[in-house]
Amino acid sequence: MAERIYLYDSTLRDGAQAQGIDFTVADKQAIAAALDAFGIDYIEGGWPGANPTDDAFFADRPASKFAKVSAFGMTRRAGRSASNDPGLQDLLAVHTPTVCLVGKAWDWQVETALKVSKAENLKMIGDSLAHMVTSGREAVFDAEHFFDGYKANPVYALDALRAAHEAGANWLVLCDTNGGSLPSEVRKIVAVVHEALPDAKLGIHCHNDTEQAVANSLAAVESGVRQIQGTINGIGERCGNANLIALIPTLMLKMGFDTGISAEKLTQIGKLSRLVDDRLNRAPDRHAAYVGSSAFAHKGGLHVSAMSKDSRSYEHIDPVWVGNARLILVSDKAGRANILSRLQQMGIDVAADDPRIGDLVTAVKAREAQGYAYEDAGASFELMARQTLGFIPRYYDLQSYRALDECRVDADGNHVTLSEATVKVAIKDEVVMTVAEGNGPVNALDAALRKALLPHYPALAAMHLTDYKVRILTPSEATAALTRVMIESSDEMGATWTTVGVSHNVIDASYNALYDAISYHLMKRQNPAA
Amino acid sequence: MAERIYLYDSTLRDGAQAQGIDFTVADKQAIAAALDAFGIDYIEGGWPGANPTDDAFFADRPASKFAKVSAFGMTRRAGRSASNDPGLQDLLAVHTPTVCLVGKAWDWQVETALKVSKAENLKMIGDSLAHMVTSGREAVFDAEHFFDGYKANPVYALDALRAAHEAGANWLVLCDTNGGSLPSEVRKIVAVVHEALPDAKLGIHCHNDTEQAVANSLAAVESGVRQIQGTINGIGERCGNANLIALIPTLMLKMGFDTGISAEKLTQIGKLSRLVDDRLNRAPDRHAAYVGSSAFAHKGGLHVSAMSKDSRSYEHIDPVWVGNARLILVSDKAGRANILSRLQQMGIDVAADDPRIGDLVTAVKAREAQGYAYEDAGASFELMARQTLGFIPRYYDLQSYRALDECRVDADGNHVTLSEATVKVAIKDEVVMTVAEGNGPVNALDAALRKALLPHYPALAAMHLTDYKVRILTPSEATAALTRVMIESSDEMGATWTTVGVSHNVIDASYNALYDAISYHLMKRQNPAA
Repeated sequence: MAERIYLYDSTLRDGAQAQGIDFTVADKQAIAAALDAFGIDYIEGGWPGANPTDDAFFADRPASKFAKVSAFGMTRRAGRSASNDPGLQDLLAVHTPTVCLVGKAWDWQVETALKVSKAENLKMIGDSLAHMVTSGREAVFDAEHFFDGYKANPVYALDALRAAHEAGANWLVLCDTNGGSLPSEVRKIVAVVHEALPDAKLGIHCHNDTEQAVANSLAAVESGVRQIQGTINGIGERCGNANLIALIPTLMLKMGFDTGISAEKLTQIGKLSRLVDDRLNRAPDRHAAYVGSSAFAHKGGLHVSAMSKDSRSYEHIDPVWVGNARLILVSDKAGRANILSRLQQMGIDVAADDPRIGDLVTAVKAREAQGYAYEDAGASFELMARQTLGFIPRYYDLQSYRALDECRVDADGNHVTLSEATVKVAIKDEVVMTVAEGNGPVNALDAALRKALLPHYPALAAMHLTDYKVRILTPSEATAALTRVMIESSDEMGATWTTVGVSHNVIDASYNALYDAISYHLMKRQNPAA
Repeated sequence: MAERIYLYDSTLRDGAQAQGIDFTVADKQAIAAALDAFGIDYIEGGWPGANPTDDAFFADRPASKFAKVSAFGMTRRAGRSASNDPGLQDLLAVHTPTVCLVGKAWDWQVETALKVSKAENLKMIGDSLAHMVTSGREAVFDAEHFFDGYKANPVYALDALRAAHEAGANWLVLCDTNGGSLPSEVRKIVAVVHEALPDAKLGIHCHNDTEQAVANSLAAVESGVRQIQGTINGIGERCGNANLIALIPTLMLKMGFDTGISAEKLTQIGKLSRLVDDRLNRAPDRHAAYVGSSAFAHKGGLHVSAMSKDSRSYEHIDPVWVGNARLILVSDKAGRANILSRLQQMGIDVAADDPRIGDLVTAVKAREAQGYAYEDAGASFELMARQTLGFIPRYYDLQSYRALDECRVDADGNHVTLSEATVKVAIKDEVVMTVAEGNGPVNALDAALRKALLPHYPALAAMHLTDYKVRILTPSEATAALTRVMIESSDEMGATWTTVGVSHNVIDASYNALYDAISYHLMKRQNPAA
């Protein structure tokens, strides 16, 4: 019978403190629903009264099937009763089953930041938590600066915990607020707390300032902690919070704990991770533990040949357990072996000694020397592979295009813009010329191309661009620099593919990526086996 | 007298195994020189004979003042003498003071991957290392899969180490090749090895597959390891290697070890981290421990007010020790308090009750609602602040622009492109119209603007664009989506500043960012105090 670890997610509260993170109410609702569906025990939705977004979320939060929604707040102010404290009133007003109150455990903080007596701070902790408990809430106590406080004054730090414990708090959470503690310290200090308060349920709240938030959380678990507070992808202030996406598989697959999440749900953890990235409109970290697209990627020729013998050689778990997959990379270092396994993954059967493999290796090296990056643009690689191997035709030939952007400033100083593009393409034996408008030249070019191609390729109606990224490849010579454009496209079935274009001219690089995106889609539609 | 920990950097060898990483010879030379100047003990330059880049690096490597350059290779093949092994010959041919040989310590690997007897593998390890030592090299033995091997067959794993030790290897490095080991296992197993081979010098080589490479390395140090192998920024295959940038400050500032790096050099660690990112043309991780731009950033109003009382409240070390700085963020959550401290950081003195602060807060909220992100574009914020506060003029007014891109495909299928832009601007009382060509519309627009502005603002000659990034803000409606453009500019003194533009039209968004970049430069030149 595996022991139970309780997961407390603070993505929507502490995670929202991170630079560059700004959740909308819709984001919070979507993430809360996903956390509940995945099987997280507690969802900290925010801080009632702190900002309009959090208030709107608590006012209109999705009904949760499994998770308990928690509201965050502070212990009462000095010199007033808990029942008259406006902050605590806001907290109770949102009617969550669980509330989390942060209070100070570091005497120096009590005196410098809070400017109240140590005794009053202990009363503030006790009164506030007792008030939550008598109001029918499950109370969680976040002991702020617990580890720094313990190092400075262990007796007072423990008294702070005791005050909350005696007031009926269900969880005492030890916070490494500044993120500066090391696993060996956390292990020792938690063990002392566990001994001092044997009947208390302990939690841990770590930050990643020494890149050890995950290790600190697990060290605490080894010393008796049974609740872990963290965030999805480790988002959070400064260097972030403990990353639940890295912690959950380790707890389940390597330490044998029961997290309340089923093995089948665990295969969805990558989706949960990407949902938060999508909501934040940021590219997922390809090197993320367990869920990163590179987490089970193999590039070195040595590894690839060993992999083919036995995957345990270079994989610490089966990627399938976390819904991930093995990835064999194409790169100019790789050569024939990697390209062959990549072709097999694409379902292309070619003999290892087929001379066309040599042509393909040469083509890849030549393109990569120009600045193409096929590791990140699988669709462009597959397209080039199938064309080099002679499996697919060119769907059309470009003869010319023109893109025009005009901007006038009106009387109010607003910019009135117009983008127009014309294309001239040969499709089969017919030459077609079309013109269209758009937001910006690439969008206009896309529109004009579709207008020309749709009559011949109606399948294009199902495809659309979902992301467009531009990077300068050689910043040293920016204005004359080579630019690389990555385009992500999707179809109505949710399939997405990424294509790449490189040129000294950003519009031309965009056109090249667009050409690959369209050709890839047509290839898949005309030859579903591909 | 602090104990010495030796740092072994594998950025140029194991780091180069990562997806998306492809060092040029120039990259390797620049990184090696920086590692040497910073005070790293060992620089593993690559694998002689494995690929042309590594061979070129060893043939023409920068002279190192402090670091020992190391060449990586494998133990000899089965059934031939070490002196006749081509791999070992390649290794000796590059004449490095140190060589690192990887050999297998996991019996199952020996039999499945290597397909030789356990006894022969031990001979391969012993012969190969002895040959390096008799050839006058400092020999390092990387015991591949050591921890998995130890768990499967502790006796054989220790025999592998013993074979290298008796052959005269100076370092025995325990490799967690698959990155699946946990700190508690590493601590226990290293302690056993330390006891079994008391006179051996031990090293550790960890991967980040459970996000614990740093913690595993430090757990090993606590059990007696004195060499750490890692990479800059933790780059490496799959989830990466142990991150030396996170390890070094913790070893020096928190554990009291001597790493051979001076306190003064430690303030350069952020520069070293960014050099590798620049070489890889990737954006630095703002949340990176110690060196990230957000590592000491404060957003929550609560924190900001506490920070003003005492920085220890929310900082685990003084950012100055690692050459970093405190950052107070602007964000619509922040309100007056943060904006005021941000203005103070900019050296703008305004009374807290100045009504213009209210106007500025409103302006920031309005812009951020439109999709502007001032957290990432400090120059655009400062410009808007100074304009809203009435400290600076508008340097010119746009009346209109036009950008034209043409592409023809020549007989060989090459794209022949032309980009041309015209601008009409009012400078002081004069209306100027200019036209220029460029690579792409933004570059042409930039050129035409400079042509119009240079006669009035010669300072512009010193400024140039160094990076240009485009992101779609709302991928769900890609083609009609809002685009955000970030432009990074620099001047001849190496100052860089980032500006932002947002519009439904990518060219217009680019123009807005360009306008801010130019205005910011002129502001700094005309009012250096600003």
